[in-house]
Amino acid sequence: MSSTKTAAICIIGDEILSGKTQDTNTNWLAKQLFDLGVDLKRVEVIPDDEADIIETVVRMSRTYNYVFTSGGIGPTHDDITYASIAKAFGCTLEDRAAAEREPATIVAPSHTDPGSMVAMRMTSARLRMAQLPYPSTAHFTPGLWVPLCVVNGNVHILPGIPRLFQAMLAHYLPDLANRDGLGTEPFYRRAINTNRGEGDIADALTAIQDQYAADGIKIGSYPTFGAFKQGGYRVCVTVVGRNVPLVDQVTQAIAEAIDGRVEPLQTPKH
Amino acid sequence: MSSTKTAAICIIGDEILSGKTQDTNTNWLAKQLFDLGVDLKRVEVIPDDEADIIETVVRMSRTYNYVFTSGGIGPTHDDITYASIAKAFGCTLEDRAAAEREPATIVAPSHTDPGSMVAMRMTSARLRMAQLPYPSTAHFTPGLWVPLCVVNGNVHILPGIPRLFQAMLAHYLPDLANRDGLGTEPFYRRAINTNRGEGDIADALTAIQDQYAADGIKIGSYPTFGAFKQGGYRVCVTVVGRNVPLVDQVTQAIAEAIDGRVEPLQTPKH
Repeated sequence: MSSTKTAAICIIGDEILSGKTQDTNTNWLAKQLFDLGVDLKRVEVIPDDEADIIETVVRMSRTYNYVFTSGGIGPTHDDITYASIAKAFGCTLEDRAAAEREPATIVAPSHTDPGSMVAMRMTSARLRMAQLPYPSTAHFTPGLWVPLCVVNGNVHILPGIPRLFQAMLAHYLPDLANRDGLGTEPFYRRAINTNRGEGDIADALTAIQDQYAADGIKIGSYPTFGAFKQGGYRVCVTVVGRNVPLVDQVTQAIAEAIDGRVEPLQTPKH
Repeated sequence: MSSTKTAAICIIGDEILSGKTQDTNTNWLAKQLFDLGVDLKRVEVIPDDEADIIETVVRMSRTYNYVFTSGGIGPTHDDITYASIAKAFGCTLEDRAAAEREPATIVAPSHTDPGSMVAMRMTSARLRMAQLPYPSTAHFTPGLWVPLCVVNGNVHILPGIPRLFQAMLAHYLPDLANRDGLGTEPFYRRAINTNRGEGDIADALTAIQDQYAADGIKIGSYPTFGAFKQGGYRVCVTVVGRNVPLVDQVTQAIAEAIDGRVEPLQTPKH
């Protein structure tokens, strides 16, 4: 088995901390990383504050294989991610995007027809968005003029807008997977539902977890409350691992021990 | 003005990091804290891992006025929050809940009728849930036998299930607000929508933000993409502060500068 790659996500945004916005980028990326077999170890939500950004990305870059930041790369005064990350790693800020792309390709979704792209007037604020940390690697997504910028070899700077966040990563992750050999041993999850309570199944689960812990099998137990009100089950037990036959074997053992129902695999997986 | 109280949230759960579950407790609590005028400074999502839990809660308890943890207090093997936090602060684990409540009150939502509560069989696993860190303060919520347990004076241990997380805090936060004088100077947010792009309004926003930054006014700018496709606006600008007349004044100034529409205040606020 190849050594497991680890990842962390840094969500940069006052709007998440003030409750204005529900973060959904974490859940979307967590699913992608799970399918690639990358172990997402930590997520931190921090304010649009230079000191917070610097402390967090430096620590994460040192600790995990991949770091993904979300938010703060727009053209307004509260968008300080590029400058803060540049400072964190001793980079300068340079007009790299503008230099690497023809002016004609500097476009944005049309206001009247969001499905199409229109040329944008280059204001001083928009030029600020084109100022990327240097040295860095810029990965362009078709149809978007702001690149996914990678600093210090593993810090991936992404926008907070979910549609752009997802578009950039959907384009980039397959290349990353190919480069680093990810996805050859993805995580695999099975679920067993039961109407018995957590307190009643806990001892059986503990025994099975103890038996298989050394094989990299992780058993989780999640009461659903509310959910079984609508005809669902009371507790959902999950089995996660990379060894498919072993996950299936543990799943069967749990189903028998707790009188549970093994859920069919879902397509698409999520 | 009273000094601002700060808070941090620690979400404990492999199911969030693996993408199985979308965290919603953060957004719900962030809104409550905003209304109480408490400054939520940081959210961290960590695995069900003792070392991670200890490092995180000790650091947060030292740094912020209030810490809220979510998850890992059920009766199964993967629920290690009580024990880990006890270890973090040199507490023991004792049968405090069982000792403080009559056995007849140890109940759970009925399986056949989730609206009602039924007596629970005390298994060894359930007794483990009754083992709380000591010393700590236990706050009981009517209808729930697991208390909100507070360790080291400011670490609030909550379940991950949103319904229980919310029920406990809805019961507890008014008492906390009363004790600490919270809510007398809540945060106040106004929103201005515009169809002009972020790049076009950035310079005006920067000038206004610079003018009012010393007065505790925070201006945020959030492109909506997708949203304006369905008839919404292109950018939402927010003004947040504690001084209501000043927030209104800045809101008007921005609306005039960027040709924006001031949104009516919403009831309920969120």
